[in-house]
Amino acid sequence: MADHGELQEQVFQGNLDLVRAGLVVLTFGNVSGVDRSENVLAIKPSGVPYEELRPEAIVVVDLETGDVVAGERPSSDTATHAVLYRRFEALGGIVHTHSRFASAWAQAGRDLPCFGTTHADHFRGPVPVTRALAADEIQGDYEQRTGDVIVETFEGRGLDPLETPAALVASHGPFAWGVDVAQAVENATALETVAELALYTLVLKAETSALDDDLLERHFTRKHGPDAYYGQPR
Amino acid sequence: MADHGELQEQVFQGNLDLVRAGLVVLTFGNVSGVDRSENVLAIKPSGVPYEELRPEAIVVVDLETGDVVAGERPSSDTATHAVLYRRFEALGGIVHTHSRFASAWAQAGRDLPCFGTTHADHFRGPVPVTRALAADEIQGDYEQRTGDVIVETFEGRGLDPLETPAALVASHGPFAWGVDVAQAVENATALETVAELALYTLVLKAETSALDDDLLERHFTRKHGPDAYYGQPR
Amino acid sequence: MADHGELQEQVFQGNLDLVRAGLVVLTFGNVSGVDRSENVLAIKPSGVPYEELRPEAIVVVDLETGDVVAGERPSSDTATHAVLYRRFEALGGIVHTHSRFASAWAQAGRDLPCFGTTHADHFRGPVPVTRALAADEIQGDYEQRTGDVIVETFEGRGLDPLETPAALVASHGPFAWGVDVAQAVENATALETVAELALYTLVLKAETSALDDDLLERHFTRKHGPDAYYGQPR
Amino acid sequence: MADHGELQEQVFQGNLDLVRAGLVVLTFGNVSGVDRSENVLAIKPSGVPYEELRPEAIVVVDLETGDVVAGERPSSDTATHAVLYRRFEALGGIVHTHSRFASAWAQAGRDLPCFGTTHADHFRGPVPVTRALAADEIQGDYEQRTGDVIVETFEGRGLDPLETPAALVASHGPFAWGVDVAQAVENATALETVAELALYTLVLKAETSALDDDLLERHFTRKHGPDAYYGQPR
Repeated sequence: MADHGELQEQVFQGNLDLVRAGLVVLTFGNVSGVDRSENVLAIKPSGVPYEELRPEAIVVVDLETGDVVAGERPSSDTATHAVLYRRFEALGGIVHTHSRFASAWAQAGRDLPCFGTTHADHFRGPVPVTRALAADEIQGDYEQRTGDVIVETFEGRGLDPLETPAALVASHGPFAWGVDVAQAVENATALETVAELALYTLVLKAETSALDDDLLERHFTRKHGPDAYYGQPR
Repeated sequence: MADHGELQEQVFQGNLDLVRAGLVVLTFGNVSGVDRSENVLAIKPSGVPYEELRPEAIVVVDLETGDVVAGERPSSDTATHAVLYRRFEALGGIVHTHSRFASAWAQAGRDLPCFGTTHADHFRGPVPVTRALAADEIQGDYEQRTGDVIVETFEGRGLDPLETPAALVASHGPFAWGVDVAQAVENATALETVAELALYTLVLKAETSALDDDLLERHFTRKHGPDAYYGQPR
Repeated sequence: MADHGELQEQVFQGNLDLVRAGLVVLTFGNVSGVDRSENVLAIKPSGVPYEELRPEAIVVVDLETGDVVAGERPSSDTATHAVLYRRFEALGGIVHTHSRFASAWAQAGRDLPCFGTTHADHFRGPVPVTRALAADEIQGDYEQRTGDVIVETFEGRGLDPLETPAALVASHGPFAWGVDVAQAVENATALETVAELALYTLVLKAETSALDDDLLERHFTRKHGPDAYYGQPR
Repeated sequence: MADHGELQEQVFQGNLDLVRAGLVVLTFGNVSGVDRSENVLAIKPSGVPYEELRPEAIVVVDLETGDVVAGERPSSDTATHAVLYRRFEALGGIVHTHSRFASAWAQAGRDLPCFGTTHADHFRGPVPVTRALAADEIQGDYEQRTGDVIVETFEGRGLDPLETPAALVASHGPFAWGVDVAQAVENATALETVAELALYTLVLKAETSALDDDLLERHFTRKHGPDAYYGQPR
């Protein structure tokens, strides 16, 4: 039997980072990570208070079957995470929160537009909101359908999940992700920040236009891809 | 004479939790609990600063007569709590605050609509605002009438107090409750959070519709009732 | 020569309480107290960082002449405080801040309306905004004229300074006061809170009406005057 | 070779002060200082977390050539700072942030109007927003053009950089400055505060007029220039 201690430790740290970033509203918030070689994901257990969380309590689940490999009951959102890992193969970590400003955009059913360079430094365009789920989707495998509707949104719009590393689930809240757990938490934090900035921007100018494409591209590629020159060389 | 130490301790802890949750605005905030077998409620004393509060200072009051059984002067809102305990028999704990966003909805005289799953996880529909009290109700047993108008609102709308565990008293502020003190504090916290989310949502989309009934039901029953599957099994 | 150590200590503590209450924006914020028997006021020195403040650095000033009795340079707002102490004889402490929400109402040139019981617990009606000062008032003894225009506002509207213990100076910010330093700080805190509540209320309902007079009177007299029954008996 | 230890220490402290002031959103925020006698600027290194920053890691750069004199890779915004130091000779320190409210004004493309005395105490009129950069400016030496467009804005409007010690770069965020690093940080803090106040003011009164010139002048000159009388004599 494989040892998942390192993955559990990363996911444990990611969950604590989420709390420190102020993104956990009430008890809502879960961070997961994936081990592609073992075909498992690790995620916060359901309903365990953050202050009682320990690395060995992080639940390990088979990515295909959903069977629990280690730990007790996984987060009730596990099926959503699993869909995203299966369909978006570049993902290494996923974060779900009900963070205040991002959830407000989700509740309003609006795409989060790119109004400035803070947004463009993290997201190559608007963060999309999904369509509402139909009654049969809600009454059936609801958490799986939540993952499906995110995938449908990205495929329908031709979006690359690493260029737009977040989605707003309509009437619900945000999911964000990245190549690893740390980047997923960073993108969830960036999402909440730009959601707050964008709301204030609309208060000041209701008809604000989206950022010019040239500036969007310059900022995104300053931090991402082969021509990145932001940060220290690694 | 009965010993009310355990009830006083729970109410003491609930009052401290209220402060930690950031819900106490100025000195406004009181938590009570009930002991149905002894027919008493226990509540914060009036005008005592939170930092000076100790478990033995929690005032115990007869639920029917309002007579003080232990301690000094009870919160001036005690009569409101007593009405709610007498009429809503499932209640074990009650919280009253002037928390910022919930009070703003109360001041605006608007029901707090269910705009998303964060709300539906705690409240099975909108949190109702009461009608304004009439002059004679205000000039008479004002605190008792405040309880009465909450009961009137729930009876008039056919609401179950455990499915909608909070009310907004018009031009005043929120009351929230639960099966015990801890759940009452949790619901008061959830109420403030969804009141904040809902205000931001309206800024982004003035005509936001209430959450679809299917999604509301799915989220409420995910956490409440016989089919709940959120959290660890107890 | 009189010893003003006790007054300086109270004013020192009041200034620290102002910082703890989160009311000091940038370096703006000063608290004063008065000793009617000695005819002096004590006030924060000008431009001294709060972390370097000590009781003996609190400046004592003659209430009539403005001469410094103890300490170095008093706050540049001292003349405003002196006018208020001379004209409103019931005042024992005064606070001036640029706190965020109260200053926004002052900048908007709007009276802060009484929208709910949180307001009515502290202020017996709207908190008035002054008229704008004329060019010659600004170019002359500006700080004294700032005090004069507050007095003019209260006299013109027939307001009792202890029933409405605050004013908004147009395009500037709030002054609050009380029978002693501690009450002045409490009223400044209450003012900022109800200014925040009122702004959110207007976002939710642009045409919110002022609180009904019956409810305003009930709440104000619950805490103030001969029939008060809020808090522990003293 | 010159020792730049003192300048590095000042810039190090300024960067920490920026974090303490709550102005650093995500990782965005850099503080620089200049040594005119040595013709160098010192600035935060690119992509180094604040908690790992040490004085000796502050990068020293030749003001004319941009060559690194000490340290590793400078902030990617260094070219913007260099332009401002070369063109505005009175500047001793510069701060760039993506602070929430100032960035919202920048994203809305609106000048930050002077609505009250808090603003007038720091800025002798509105804080200007730049024009948008053209495609060729963005695709070329983008960071240098960002500095150029700030200079163009000030020259076009005939503004004195020490009287209006900040600018909003359209769709991006604020730059603020001062005669030294400490004053630059202070002005960045003041800018964020008045940006927040001004947004709330517009919510309360959409058509708020700019502050009367007499009051603006009185407040600005109370703190600045030969007739200043605010603060302790130095």
